Amino acid sequence: MRQDSHGPIGVFDSGIGGLTVLKALMARLPHERTLYLGDTARVPYGTKSGEVVTRYSLKNAEFLLERGIKLLVVACNTASAAALPALQAALPVPVLGVIEPGARTALQRTRGGGVGVIGTPGTVRSGAYQRALEAGDPKVAVKAMACPLFVPLAEEGWTTGDVPLLVAREYLAGFARDGVDTLVLGCTHYPLLKGVIAEVVGPHVSLVDSAEATAEAVAVLLGEKGLLAPPASQPAGGPEHAFFVTDVPERFVEVGARFLGRPIPSAEQVDLRF
Amino acid sequence: MRQDSHGPIGVFDSGIGGLTVLKALMARLPHERTLYLGDTARVPYGTKSGEVVTRYSLKNAEFLLERGIKLLVVACNTASAAALPALQAALPVPVLGVIEPGARTALQRTRGGGVGVIGTPGTVRSGAYQRALEAGDPKVAVKAMACPLFVPLAEEGWTTGDVPLLVAREYLAGFARDGVDTLVLGCTHYPLLKGVIAEVVGPHVSLVDSAEATAEAVAVLLGEKGLLAPPASQPAGGPEHAFFVTDVPERFVEVGARFLGRPIPSAEQVDLRF
Repeated sequence: MRQDSHGPIGVFDSGIGGLTVLKALMARLPHERTLYLGDTARVPYGTKSGEVVTRYSLKNAEFLLERGIKLLVVACNTASAAALPALQAALPVPVLGVIEPGARTALQRTRGGGVGVIGTPGTVRSGAYQRALEAGDPKVAVKAMACPLFVPLAEEGWTTGDVPLLVAREYLAGFARDGVDTLVLGCTHYPLLKGVIAEVVGPHVSLVDSAEATAEAVAVLLGEKGLLAPPASQPAGGPEHAFFVTDVPERFVEVGARFLGRPIPSAEQVDLRF
Repeated sequence: MRQDSHGPIGVFDSGIGGLTVLKALMARLPHERTLYLGDTARVPYGTKSGEVVTRYSLKNAEFLLERGIKLLVVACNTASAAALPALQAALPVPVLGVIEPGARTALQRTRGGGVGVIGTPGTVRSGAYQRALEAGDPKVAVKAMACPLFVPLAEEGWTTGDVPLLVAREYLAGFARDGVDTLVLGCTHYPLLKGVIAEVVGPHVSLVDSAEATAEAVAVLLGEKGLLAPPASQPAGGPEHAFFVTDVPERFVEVGARFLGRPIPSAEQVDLRF
């Protein structure tokens, strides 16, 4: 397939969480058109098997590919952990996940005290962050912990107050004791809980959000491959951003605005079956 | 289609929660064979639209029907709320949901102080319990509340202690103030949180679990239609109970035992795509 610098960047996620990655992409690459697909009919991916997550990821990618994307960003940590090699093997365009960029940032930040990783059960079970961190620094000490209640808390908007603080204490108290100095927020929902997470782990632990690191990696890759959108091609109102979902769009449009940090004018429901 | 008293009872649910209904069925109808399908590749249904839940429900029912069931129990409250009329119209065997039996039990228990209903966002939004209660007693006062964090808490096994208690207080404090005397646990996961729910609403509020009422309704219907399994047909070790799931079976078998109250020897993964 011909890769065309005029094509949009494709982004998929299990639902709305990946909008935090899209937000970072739009800030870093303001001239790029984007297509976002949230698989809201099958969300969440984090509690499902690698096998099923890979099957869903390949179908999501196929949908975006048919719409002429020049590069695919897997915004979901669980899908990045489970399906990146399968996606890279199957797709004729470059595919980037969020794990590699997040791990690289963590290795730049750590002061030798060890790196913590929190994510969904699927992400942690896959060992993908652990492998990416050890590939960058074989001596790094890694401690990973699944925090399954963080996603429903973030989706409910329960991001401050006693409940999220107690839940965060339950999951994260060990990190403080183990001398971890850097903590990767290995799920796109977790930045919404940054306040309580920071309160529990303390000010000496640096929190890594993969979204910005991923946006930077996308910018570098597009530059290297000569695929950056030519600014002259942009319409006056800025580039187009289109949103697709697999369940009815109302909740995505409403809750998604909190994740994207700006209103989502509309999202198109597409009837994907897999 | 011929309905045969030798056929099994089919039960489907979005995942493992419906095992609480199966447990009640097995206790009430010890001679019946059962087939259980948990749609673990698409779980949960409670946060998805009625349209998508109906589509999934019809496919689940089709799978069980092909295996010769004589009656279908929709063990998932969300699927019962969204899809019961569509299932009854499409299937050649009797179809029972959990809402009608639960509502009837609540009306028998209330002492006139009003009935509370808690469930997933999908169940509460559908208004199905409210309609079933008002159909039985047009003067009943109904107060419904979605409790989306209860499902992940139950699945995580966080059913006692400070976190579930705080969450229950946040959701349920209003019921105590409103003089509700009966509370329907309108989601198959909620009986696992009965302890903290009872602590928050107090001893004067009667908690209704639809599982037993549904098992009773199934027994009555099978009797009326002459479809009860002939006891002489049973193998020595008791009737067969088969389990199917749409994602890998490991977690279902492990966590499901807590819901079913007995070990699940195995579950077969089936590759349903819809």
